[in-house]
Amino acid sequence: MAFRFRPVDASFYDLFSESAQHLVRGAELLAEMLSDTSDRPTVAAAMRDAEHAADETTHAIVRRVNSTFVTPFDREDIYDLASGLDDVMDEMDEAVDLILLYEVGTLPAELSAQVEVLQRCAELTAEAMPRLQAMQSLDEYWIEINRLENTGDKSHRRILASLFSGKYEALEVLKLKDITEALEGAIDAFETVANIVEQIAVKES
Amino acid sequence: MAFRFRPVDASFYDLFSESAQHLVRGAELLAEMLSDTSDRPTVAAAMRDAEHAADETTHAIVRRVNSTFVTPFDREDIYDLASGLDDVMDEMDEAVDLILLYEVGTLPAELSAQVEVLQRCAELTAEAMPRLQAMQSLDEYWIEINRLENTGDKSHRRILASLFSGKYEALEVLKLKDITEALEGAIDAFETVANIVEQIAVKES
Amino acid sequence: MAFRFRPVDASFYDLFSESAQHLVRGAELLAEMLSDTSDRPTVAAAMRDAEHAADETTHAIVRRVNSTFVTPFDREDIYDLASGLDDVMDEMDEAVDLILLYEVGTLPAELSAQVEVLQRCAELTAEAMPRLQAMQSLDEYWIEINRLENTGDKSHRRILASLFSGKYEALEVLKLKDITEALEGAIDAFETVANIVEQIAVKES
Repeated sequence: MAFRFRPVDASFYDLFSESAQHLVRGAELLAEMLSDTSDRPTVAAAMRDAEHAADETTHAIVRRVNSTFVTPFDREDIYDLASGLDDVMDEMDEAVDLILLYEVGTLPAELSAQVEVLQRCAELTAEAMPRLQAMQSLDEYWIEINRLENTGDKSHRRILASLFSGKYEALEVLKLKDITEALEGAIDAFETVANIVEQIAVKES
Repeated sequence: MAFRFRPVDASFYDLFSESAQHLVRGAELLAEMLSDTSDRPTVAAAMRDAEHAADETTHAIVRRVNSTFVTPFDREDIYDLASGLDDVMDEMDEAVDLILLYEVGTLPAELSAQVEVLQRCAELTAEAMPRLQAMQSLDEYWIEINRLENTGDKSHRRILASLFSGKYEALEVLKLKDITEALEGAIDAFETVANIVEQIAVKES
Repeated sequence: MAFRFRPVDASFYDLFSESAQHLVRGAELLAEMLSDTSDRPTVAAAMRDAEHAADETTHAIVRRVNSTFVTPFDREDIYDLASGLDDVMDEMDEAVDLILLYEVGTLPAELSAQVEVLQRCAELTAEAMPRLQAMQSLDEYWIEINRLENTGDKSHRRILASLFSGKYEALEVLKLKDITEALEGAIDAFETVANIVEQIAVKES
């Protein structure tokens, strides 16, 4: 192999972009899941496939770190970023799975605000991953994800207040609380990803 | 000390085997706890002792890493494996503790399927630990634990569907859901252990 | 800068002391929150400020590690200790936030025992942080935090038994269980901090 057309290091960034694309897909499926008119079992099956694909990408990143002598940035940070992105997918998958399992009918309207936050976070993350190469504008990414997480936090509190308002029966509260907490967990997981990206940017600056 | 009869490195493997034996014991006690005919306070006391013994082994591993200059495999992986095994024990101890505390009567039949999965995972882990020395057949261990975790996941979903079927009162659902989640947590913790073992095998290959 | 009046390393210890002072403040606010006569929204707002200040201190520690070539003790342990202290604050903030959000009236008396444990843990931690410099009496700190965590654990179990005694309606149980679990989480988080301090002391001895 006299020369390579594609620098080895570029493929870490390609794999991170791939991870982020799974999150865009996952957030899209989550939005479909919220709709009353969707065929929920079908959407849930598509989500399972997306989650498996995301797992594959995470494993590809880990295998690459284990077999690369000089990594583009700190080895531990590559693991943390890969596993942070994977955690977001797991939380979104959990939310979809519970909506199916718990046979909830129409979900409280405020839950779609949370899913829109997740779609926006996924989009921003997909835009940020290629910028890891030049360490460009990652502060803006981190600031915006933090702002979105704050709005998600306020939404979450409003949803909880509504669940306990007396409008819902105890078992319904239990189910909707689990789903709400999975959505909140996914938003928090995006904030963890943004913090890792920020850490990488700081160390490489 | 002119020569040692037992290589220093062997004792890491002995300690990991010891950890895994605690998990076999813990899963056994968990099975007894499920039975209506057991003296639950006595079984729970035995579980507390097993959990303390498991803690001792975990501390022994950590002390050994801190005082060993050349470790048989990556230092961070030794910490992660020790603490991963400890996490399984904590989850099983939590399940036993809740069964006692919540004064549940007859537990849903499907919960014993989960405990059988835990017993099988503990057995496989006890068999795998000595194989860390020669890095032998660890792929098979990882594949089988993953398969068992998948069946546990399906069981978990069936149990949740049953809890919310209307068969149980709200407070009973809350209690059984906590116990079920501790069992699911223990199975997931075994999967985390298997992933760490796989990582070690990959790095050492 | 020809010479420094204050050794660079001393500021890690100052920052850790600062973190611990936030925990003393947080536990104090949590105690106020439990009282029926407090203006809960005002106390909760003060807690949010304390949590933000704690975040600032955590970030200051992380920035210092990233820009210091020779750290007073293991770099990973500095991160772990900073983030461990931050976790305690987050749990206490969560408890305060839920007490406000869930509009609970008079809280079960046993909850104030938990908050007293947290105040004692915060006090001990504030006393221990300066001792990191000379690695003095850290065993005693760790032993006492572990003892306090054990009493907290027993209290937690008594609170849960009381919640499920039939005295409370299902939705009230759900709310009080969440608050109780945040308090338990904060006590466990102090134990994690003590374990990290013990690890540091062992490595440096």
